[in-house]
Order: sequence, then structure tokens, then C-alpha cells
Amino acid sequence: MRRQVCSTLLVLVLGAALVSQVATSRGGEPEPRKAPAVAVDDRLPSWNEGAAKRAIQSFVERVTQEGSPDFVPLSERIAVFDNDGTLWCEQPVYVQALFVRDRVRALALEHPDWGERQPFRAVLKGDRAELAALGEKGIVDLVTTTHAGMTTDEFHKIVEDWIAGAKHPRFDRPYTRCVYQPMLELLAYLRANGFKTYIVSGGGVEFMRPWTESVYGIPPEQVIGSTIQTKYELRGDTPALVRLPEVDFIDDRAGKPVGIGKLIGRRPIAAFGNSDGDYEMLRYVTSGSGPRLGLIVHHTDAEREYAYSRDSLVGRLARALDEAPARGWTVVDMKRDWSQVFANK
Amino acid sequence: MRRQVCSTLLVLVLGAALVSQVATSRGGEPEPRKAPAVAVDDRLPSWNEGAAKRAIQSFVERVTQEGSPDFVPLSERIAVFDNDGTLWCEQPVYVQALFVRDRVRALALEHPDWGERQPFRAVLKGDRAELAALGEKGIVDLVTTTHAGMTTDEFHKIVEDWIAGAKHPRFDRPYTRCVYQPMLELLAYLRANGFKTYIVSGGGVEFMRPWTESVYGIPPEQVIGSTIQTKYELRGDTPALVRLPEVDFIDDRAGKPVGIGKLIGRRPIAAFGNSDGDYEMLRYVTSGSGPRLGLIVHHTDAEREYAYSRDSLVGRLARALDEAPARGWTVVDMKRDWSQVFANK
Repeated sequence: MRRQVCSTLLVLVLGAALVSQVATSRGGEPEPRKAPAVAVDDRLPSWNEGAAKRAIQSFVERVTQEGSPDFVPLSERIAVFDNDGTLWCEQPVYVQALFVRDRVRALALEHPDWGERQPFRAVLKGDRAELAALGEKGIVDLVTTTHAGMTTDEFHKIVEDWIAGAKHPRFDRPYTRCVYQPMLELLAYLRANGFKTYIVSGGGVEFMRPWTESVYGIPPEQVIGSTIQTKYELRGDTPALVRLPEVDFIDDRAGKPVGIGKLIGRRPIAAFGNSDGDYEMLRYVTSGSGPRLGLIVHHTDAEREYAYSRDSLVGRLARALDEAPARGWTVVDMKRDWSQVFANK
Repeated sequence: MRRQVCSTLLVLVLGAALVSQVATSRGGEPEPRKAPAVAVDDRLPSWNEGAAKRAIQSFVERVTQEGSPDFVPLSERIAVFDNDGTLWCEQPVYVQALFVRDRVRALALEHPDWGERQPFRAVLKGDRAELAALGEKGIVDLVTTTHAGMTTDEFHKIVEDWIAGAKHPRFDRPYTRCVYQPMLELLAYLRANGFKTYIVSGGGVEFMRPWTESVYGIPPEQVIGSTIQTKYELRGDTPALVRLPEVDFIDDRAGKPVGIGKLIGRRPIAAFGNSDGDYEMLRYVTSGSGPRLGLIVHHTDAEREYAYSRDSLVGRLARALDEAPARGWTVVDMKRDWSQVFANK
């Protein structure tokens, strides 16, 4: 767990300094496709006809067909979605890394010594070598300093304000509009068929909850993510939850099924991811009995978004892609399968 | 946290040995009541007319009245319920304590040395003095030995089998029929008015999830409770979550708001409890802005169930009862307010 904390947070924070430096890598061998099916009652208008769309529709039809051997009762229709790179853009760096950077900059105004004090100096300078040399303690310090020391309500407000103002450096639009239109349609399509949709992300849960309901239609209680410790405390006579500078749980890789166990308590029947960080979740979900859907968004579109997989620091996709055919996972080729990438509003 | 782990588990396990020895204590001063209201469209047939029923109905009417200043949007209608003593009978001991005892007895068949080995010997003998002398390590050993070492699916099956066979010593009926009819009606009434209903219990979350949906209509993902650590692991080629002998989180007292923060991520607007273990949850929930409902089930009915509060080892109710009037919490006098106690089926 310790090593995982470090590597997960390292990627998160390193990213912050690199926002203007990272070159997008090209990658991705599109999966072999069969002849397109004819779409009936198209609820997925941004999905081109093809194997991916057909796999989604066929799965939903099978599990909702009463009397069929593949029928799944309403209460068990649970679908889990990774967030970064699956529902919204994670390039050139994780959005939360920019939040860390901006929080350090904002807090530095009250801490003039940070200009010469690590781990803050490295972030303020945007120095890659200094960041890489921080080690676990420095990384954890960065995350907890920027995410702890206030109540959950106060942090909610900080995130809400930040996300309203922050813009993607390349697309020059709010991050909440760097979400994928086809995935919004997929969420809506699943919910229209009785699914409960969850986010299961390596990102901080309280960094997502303030905006997932308005952006994805996913309420806070259906967001699973990494957590820091909190403590019940009276502020005057008013109870509050105070965020402590201590990591509680990292919801990444093998942590994703554990997070699902903690918060959902049963095995979902569909999982959507885009990187090796989702590998264990995909395995866990698709190994249950009965019909299962595992789907990987493969970023193959350098023009409209980014093209990356095997060589990427952020969102590396290798093992999950290699094993996809044998495990029956559907691979979405963004360039080929999506007629539109980003949501309009 | 360490001290709290110990005291919470101590009460749990001590109870196991005392199942035939505990005398029920009498307690409880009924709250002053006003004139009964006239019930319109009665969805709470087992609730006698009175202040408690009126408080529930008035709260629900206010938050569901569109255009009213007290209106609460559907997505924020979240209600949290303690389980032991609030939804089902917790006397003479917590049901989970009997599960621990029965598990120790069952496992002892494969461990002949347990007859002379603590902490098991104390449970097998049902010896109060020996149990009291176990200390934290012994208590934690008891809980983890009986709750860990198998996959979550295997544990689910163990609980399911146990709960199907276990009977309440006094009422001679399955524990799943020692649930309170008025609370079932209340759950249904709230859900009919758009509420999402949650359990927030000090008990083990995986001890509840196998049966809460069929008994209360509350799905596993809406059950919050104490947890032990789990680990993602391949069993052969099949992924599983394995339960480890290590306490993860105690969802009791000040842990209840923390558990709510972790799993729900926003402040519920109604909370239902019966003991001082629910005090912090009641405070947390009812201190939010807008309309709030806090309700305490006071066990005052020795004839149909049990009468206890201030002097009880299990379900002690003192501070929450004392502060109820000042904090605007509704106190249900079981004897007076409920025309029926247990569910028929």
C-alpha cells in the first residue's frame, strides 16, 4: 500500500509541473472490427456503428429482457466508470494535478517561505528534477497540505470555485466541458435501462463529488475515490467533518475492487476504464457469473483529443489492452467509434 | 480510535456470553405530548396518533411541497437509520454477538485446542469474568477470527446461512422477524416520498448486507457499518476480495458522521437512532440548514419488547435523551406510540 500511495501520488503531482511540457505520444492498434450492425432506436447518437456500440447495446438488451436467462434484476444493475480518461480528458495531466498546483500557488501567498521550502518550491518553480527528488514524504505533504486542514464543506466550496474557473490549456474550455459526449450518452442509456451508475476513480473522492451530479448525473454517494482521513469535530456548537493530513485509502489498481467492496458491497455487472489502473476492476467485474460487460476507452485520436496508451506517463494502457481480446473486453477506438468527442455544454 | 475499537467490540463480544443472563432494565421518562393530530392518508398504520407521528408527517410534507421554502430536491432527500435497537431488536444482546459466539463454537470443532486457549475458551465457557479479562487484543482476535480469512462472497454465504437459522431467545422467531413494523412503514413512507434510505450502524457492514434488502428494502450499497480490511487477490484465475484480520473502520459514535462522509458525501436531512451511539450522527444531521428531522426510538415497552435506556449495557441512552428537547429531536415512546412492535412476516 505504501509503495502504491507513493506511485499514485507521484504521477498526480509530477504532472502538475509538466503541464506545458508533456508531449502527447501516439499509440494504439485498433481492434479488429466486424460489419456494423443496424441501430434501432438510437440512444447513442455519438457512437458510430461498429463492434463497440453493438457490444453495449447487445449487453443492455440481454440483461433487461425479462424471462431471458441473461435477465438481471434491477437492483443488481450496477455499472462502474473510471473518471480520468474514461469520462473526461486526463491529458496532458490529471486535472487534480492542476488543482494541487493552483492550491500551492494560492496558499503560497500566505506562506512567503514556501519559495525556498520543499516540497512547495518544486511546484512553484515547476521544476521536474526537484519534483522527482521529493520522495514519498514530500509528495504526501503536497497532497495533504492542499487537501486537508479544513472542513469537508469548506473543501467542497474550494473545489467548486476552482473548477468553475479552470480551463484546459489546449482546448481552452472548462474541464467540465472536456467530458466525453459518447460517455454521457452511455451513462444516460444505462440509467434509462435501470442501471445505477458509479464512478470508481483513483482521484480524490471529495475533488469529484462537488460537480459529478451536474456534469454526469452521478450523485456524490455514487462516487468512489481515494480518501484522506476525516474527523468529527465541533466548531463552536456546530458539528463538522475536518479533513486531516493523513492518507486513508488509495482507490487505484487493486484498490478499485476494494473500494467497490467497501462502498457498493456487491459485484457490479459492467465496468468502463481506459488504463492499466482499471485492470483489476475490469477483471473483478467481468469474472462474476452471468452477463458482464468490460469496456476500455482507447485514446487514438490525436486530432480531436489525444493519442496515447503504452508509453504514456498518465493513463498508461498496456496489459489491459493486450488481454482485452482473451477476456472479452470491448475496446473503443476513440477515433473510429466516436463521431463526437467532447460534450457541447 | 484504539480505545473506541476496544469499547465497541467489548460490548459486542461480552454480550455473547451473557445472552441468558442479562436482565432487562427499566428506564425512560416519556416525553411530554400534545394533543393528537388527525391522520390523513395514513401510511403509518402502526404509529399511534401523537407528537412523534405528527413530527414525521409534517417533516415529510414540508420537504416534498414544491414551491415551499422548505422544499428539498429529490437528490438531497437522504435519511439515515441506525440498525440495532432502531430497526431491529438489540436485546438481550446485539445479534452480531450471537453470531460471534456461534462462529467460535462452529470453528472450535476444527480447533480442539480452543477449549483451553483464550480468547476462545472464554466464549466457549460463556464465562463473564474471563471475557472481561481478555483485553483489546483478545477482543480483536475474537472478531477477526470469526469474520476474516475468507472471501467476501464466502462470508456473505456464512451470514446468510446463520441468519436463516438463528432465533431470538425470548421471542423464538428469526431475527429478521424481530424488526419493528412501524420502522418498516416509516422506511416505505420515506421512500414513497423520494427519500434514499441508508443504514448507518456500528455493526459490521458485511454482517448486514446479505439480508437488508429483503428485510428492509435497503440495498447493500446503502448500508454503512464497521469494516475490516480486505484485499484483492486471485484465487486461481478468479479475482476475489479476501477479508483480512485487521480492523479498518469503526462506524460508531463520532465514527458515524465520518462513515456518512465517506460513503454518502453529503449531509443527510433525517436521522433515526436509539442510543448515545447515535448522538453524533443526530447532531451532525440536524445541524444542517433547512428542515431536519432527528428521531430517537426510546425502548419503554418491557411487555412487548424491552424497556431500557440509561442503565443499559447495550443501547445506553442518556445524553441523547437529555438533550432531545433542546435540540428538537423527536422521541418515540415505543409503548405509547407504536400499536404494533414486530413485523408479522
